[in-house]
Amino acid sequence: MFFRVLVYNFDMATIGVFDSGVGGLTVLKELATHFPTEKFIYLGDTARLPYGTKSPETIRAYSEQILNFLTSRKVDALVIACNTASSQVPEGEWQGLPVFNVIQPGAALAAQTSQSGRIGVLGTRATVASEAYTKAIHQIQPATQVFSQACPLFVPLAEEGWLEDPITNLIAYRYIHPLLAQEIDTLILGCTHYPLLKTAIQKACGSQIQLVDSGKALALQLQAAFDSGKIQPAPSEEPGEIHILATDLSAHMQNLANQILSPLNIHAFEFVHL
Amino acid sequence: MFFRVLVYNFDMATIGVFDSGVGGLTVLKELATHFPTEKFIYLGDTARLPYGTKSPETIRAYSEQILNFLTSRKVDALVIACNTASSQVPEGEWQGLPVFNVIQPGAALAAQTSQSGRIGVLGTRATVASEAYTKAIHQIQPATQVFSQACPLFVPLAEEGWLEDPITNLIAYRYIHPLLAQEIDTLILGCTHYPLLKTAIQKACGSQIQLVDSGKALALQLQAAFDSGKIQPAPSEEPGEIHILATDLSAHMQNLANQILSPLNIHAFEFVHL
Repeated sequence: MFFRVLVYNFDMATIGVFDSGVGGLTVLKELATHFPTEKFIYLGDTARLPYGTKSPETIRAYSEQILNFLTSRKVDALVIACNTASSQVPEGEWQGLPVFNVIQPGAALAAQTSQSGRIGVLGTRATVASEAYTKAIHQIQPATQVFSQACPLFVPLAEEGWLEDPITNLIAYRYIHPLLAQEIDTLILGCTHYPLLKTAIQKACGSQIQLVDSGKALALQLQAAFDSGKIQPAPSEEPGEIHILATDLSAHMQNLANQILSPLNIHAFEFVHL
Repeated sequence: MFFRVLVYNFDMATIGVFDSGVGGLTVLKELATHFPTEKFIYLGDTARLPYGTKSPETIRAYSEQILNFLTSRKVDALVIACNTASSQVPEGEWQGLPVFNVIQPGAALAAQTSQSGRIGVLGTRATVASEAYTKAIHQIQPATQVFSQACPLFVPLAEEGWLEDPITNLIAYRYIHPLLAQEIDTLILGCTHYPLLKTAIQKACGSQIQLVDSGKALALQLQAAFDSGKIQPAPSEEPGEIHILATDLSAHMQNLANQILSPLNIHAFEFVHL
């Protein structure tokens, strides 16, 4: 007789990622592509989305609740893949775990990219009102001029799937036109849905303006944290995979998740009541 | 010396109205204009809007919670001024109180208006998926053909305030074009935000198509309920007024409420934690 015993014991990190909905999946995709052997637990707070129109107090309360939930799932690091939530959670640590948000890496990359010192920011009403990008850029380069524009129609356009569409081009131009008049040379996509509309946004900008995608910037910072030992992978019995949790797990949400993450595979969907 | 004693003791009804956000204010405005001496308590579940993208179970659970809350405020009747919630709450009574939704009156008025027996319905994804209007129209006139179209961009366009705008005209035409090909003669505005976009919708339709506004249809049904004694006004010490309650009371929400209800006065805003 032949007995086969399998023992998994990897030193693998589990990264908890959250967003108000599906937008943060553009960030998750960047991270999971950059770190294909780690495990990712993504929580989309779809029952309460969008955060962009809510008050700062409500956004803060929801974010704390979700950070605590992900911590209870034994993650090694927390990523706030939602600009609106990032603007209300300045902490770099939560219950002893490192916290990464999308604002600081995006701001740092934009400050590094801009030659003219004139940077534009596109975001939700709440992100723009919080001035989170302006403050983060000024901490790095105080003399930089930052011009912000709220774009409330971009998220529903992305969710409608009108990604390369004359209507989307018109709306992008309407939002971006005032920033062009300010002669920016760098434009931050300050909402995780916006990379889905990159073609329309670049068309409205012209090729002279550099777009900054926070997901890509964040992957670089996470890499640095792994390299420096700031993230300490716990011994794990599970191989690298992607779990998608949602507070309202509709078929529409699952379809969007599969579309956005393709060609990556989602290993499990899970409904979560918060 | 002169003492003035004021004793209020009207037989006045308090009507509880709810919506996921500010859209139902178009219904409230119709009702408060039609019944200027009654008291209205409006609850906007702004912390959890929009309902249109959520699952039926979540929408039902939120609706029950809000109906119970409004009942605890001693209302004489309940109005569900939200098409998405209406599609998940078929009951005509709640804890002994009459419940009115926006679907049945809109469906009845459309069935009465249509000459060709071909009716269009514009709504959120959830309202369209529920087929609530189709079912309600078929209960009245089984032979009617109903054609539905989900319009996820209409709510954010209305909240952006782009009410009479070339972009809104284009989007309206994109959504309505497939219904025109079906030769409808009547079109239901199946979301309470849509009356704010009436100009663009009528332009996309042409003048031959009759638009049906559920708020107006609902006011007529409430009037009939008062006339028949179905609503029994409780003795009250307060004159007719409008109270706006919200689960997330942002400045943006208060501005929109004042704009939509103008020239009516709002007597109080109140934050509610559900």
